[in-house]
Amino acid sequence: MSSGTKSSVVAVLGLGSMGYGMALSLVRAGFTVAGYDVNRAAVERLTAEGGRAAGSPAAAAKDADAVVSVVVNAAQTESVLFGENGAGAAMKPGAVFMSCATMAPAAARGLAARVEADGRHYLDAPISGGAQRAAEGALTVLASGSADAFEAADEVLDAVAAKVFRVGDAAGLGAAYKMVNQLLAGVHIAAASEAMAFAAAQGLDLQMVYDIITKSAGNSWMFENRMQHVLDDDYTPRSAVSIFVKDLGIVEDMARAGHLPVPVAATALQMFLMTAAAGMAGDDDSSVARLYADLMGTELKAKGRS
Amino acid sequence: MSSGTKSSVVAVLGLGSMGYGMALSLVRAGFTVAGYDVNRAAVERLTAEGGRAAGSPAAAAKDADAVVSVVVNAAQTESVLFGENGAGAAMKPGAVFMSCATMAPAAARGLAARVEADGRHYLDAPISGGAQRAAEGALTVLASGSADAFEAADEVLDAVAAKVFRVGDAAGLGAAYKMVNQLLAGVHIAAASEAMAFAAAQGLDLQMVYDIITKSAGNSWMFENRMQHVLDDDYTPRSAVSIFVKDLGIVEDMARAGHLPVPVAATALQMFLMTAAAGMAGDDDSSVARLYADLMGTELKAKGRS
Repeated sequence: MSSGTKSSVVAVLGLGSMGYGMALSLVRAGFTVAGYDVNRAAVERLTAEGGRAAGSPAAAAKDADAVVSVVVNAAQTESVLFGENGAGAAMKPGAVFMSCATMAPAAARGLAARVEADGRHYLDAPISGGAQRAAEGALTVLASGSADAFEAADEVLDAVAAKVFRVGDAAGLGAAYKMVNQLLAGVHIAAASEAMAFAAAQGLDLQMVYDIITKSAGNSWMFENRMQHVLDDDYTPRSAVSIFVKDLGIVEDMARAGHLPVPVAATALQMFLMTAAAGMAGDDDSSVARLYADLMGTELKAKGRS
Repeated sequence: MSSGTKSSVVAVLGLGSMGYGMALSLVRAGFTVAGYDVNRAAVERLTAEGGRAAGSPAAAAKDADAVVSVVVNAAQTESVLFGENGAGAAMKPGAVFMSCATMAPAAARGLAARVEADGRHYLDAPISGGAQRAAEGALTVLASGSADAFEAADEVLDAVAAKVFRVGDAAGLGAAYKMVNQLLAGVHIAAASEAMAFAAAQGLDLQMVYDIITKSAGNSWMFENRMQHVLDDDYTPRSAVSIFVKDLGIVEDMARAGHLPVPVAATALQMFLMTAAAGMAGDDDSSVARLYADLMGTELKAKGRS
């Protein structure tokens, strides 16, 4: 990670838990950081930490050498680029637009083509690691783009990421690798939820299930992380059910367009949809376990807890 | 792990990759080990390492303080206990039958009741860890049974296991926890296979996919272990497709009997069935990835390999 004062300005569009953490890492690395979010309170939280407030994507982007977009999806990315007061027309020639939202490869290619046609660079750069690692400048980035895009984004990547996978020389590749991860992550949350409810319905001790599985061949990163939320009976959204409705939806769209059967992912998506339909769309994605438990008429309590 | 010479005799019924490894660990711990297998070559392999050959389960069991059964399923366990020349009637009063096969909890309870009615002990003791850890005496055992059963099996558990989870005081509980693990393990193999073929169909570099996923939130123990077989194009059965046809079949039977919906596991089972139907029942369980690749019309090769 770099440190000290830098001459360059970086715009951060979208100051949710991930964008805010990345903006802090950039401030700490010495960049002048211009932040924009539709939520004014998010912008004020950044200015209190040394960032500069911007009233629109265009205002944030106009002096920036790099524009980091950390919005939710392809539609919001298009909006901050090409909507009213968008960053697209305001960016300096030769500046780089680094897009971190999870989206379909075709969407990333489309946005990149429009940005590059205007003489700016585009880095397809989906991220993973969660809010805490964002704040620590320790994200994983799956990046693809031209050599110029990588060069223009180099110091920014250095400030926000512990690990950058350089997966190719064109936009869309970063997105494609990210969707493979999202397929697995979504299936693993659904499977973990199904297994915990199946165990609870048999009267097994869920803390014992957790202790066994996390040391066995049935373990997954998602089981270990998300089933702790279930044991704690804490469904505060670290990542919401609606995120996997979106991401497994993208997987299903890609699969259908390519005539690629993905029955396991499609079934997992149905479980996220049922959970959202049951009123838990905004709750933590481990809420899929609550949906299963409700269906099975069982409770997800560890023994020895009230 | 204990060492030195012990006075007691242990019978091992079933000398496949797991049973043979456990028998070796018992020989090393100083037990007199009487081995039985329908395959004479497996018995001879054990006698070359210091074990004693037995011509039937009864012959192996008659002097033994503990009988370790490492056959494939409930039907084979019933057969070595109560079939012709079975161990059940031959065992000494007070000896323990330690059953390691993966089976439904109801099957374990039924066998335990018959063994205990005859004045012997039964330890429901499914194992995990694979052939190498069996040979090292480093398995994980999910054990349930009476205090007497645990006491009678204590030194044997010490010799074969690195970790014993004592999950309850009655047969069936060990089996139940094991089935939760098998649900997850089976789903994760199917999901890993689906994700790798989905990636291959998009032209992604599968070695890069492996490197990214194993450091990301989409990782699972099974992805990391089995997808290495896919990258190596090596489908020599370490664990065969047919094992998960059986184990996810048990999960589905249990779920149906209890009116418990398990749609993700049921979908994964269909993928193992398709792989078996395509002629790969005896191949490594990572062959599910080959089935997906065939369906998708793609190849599972890492770039830079022929």
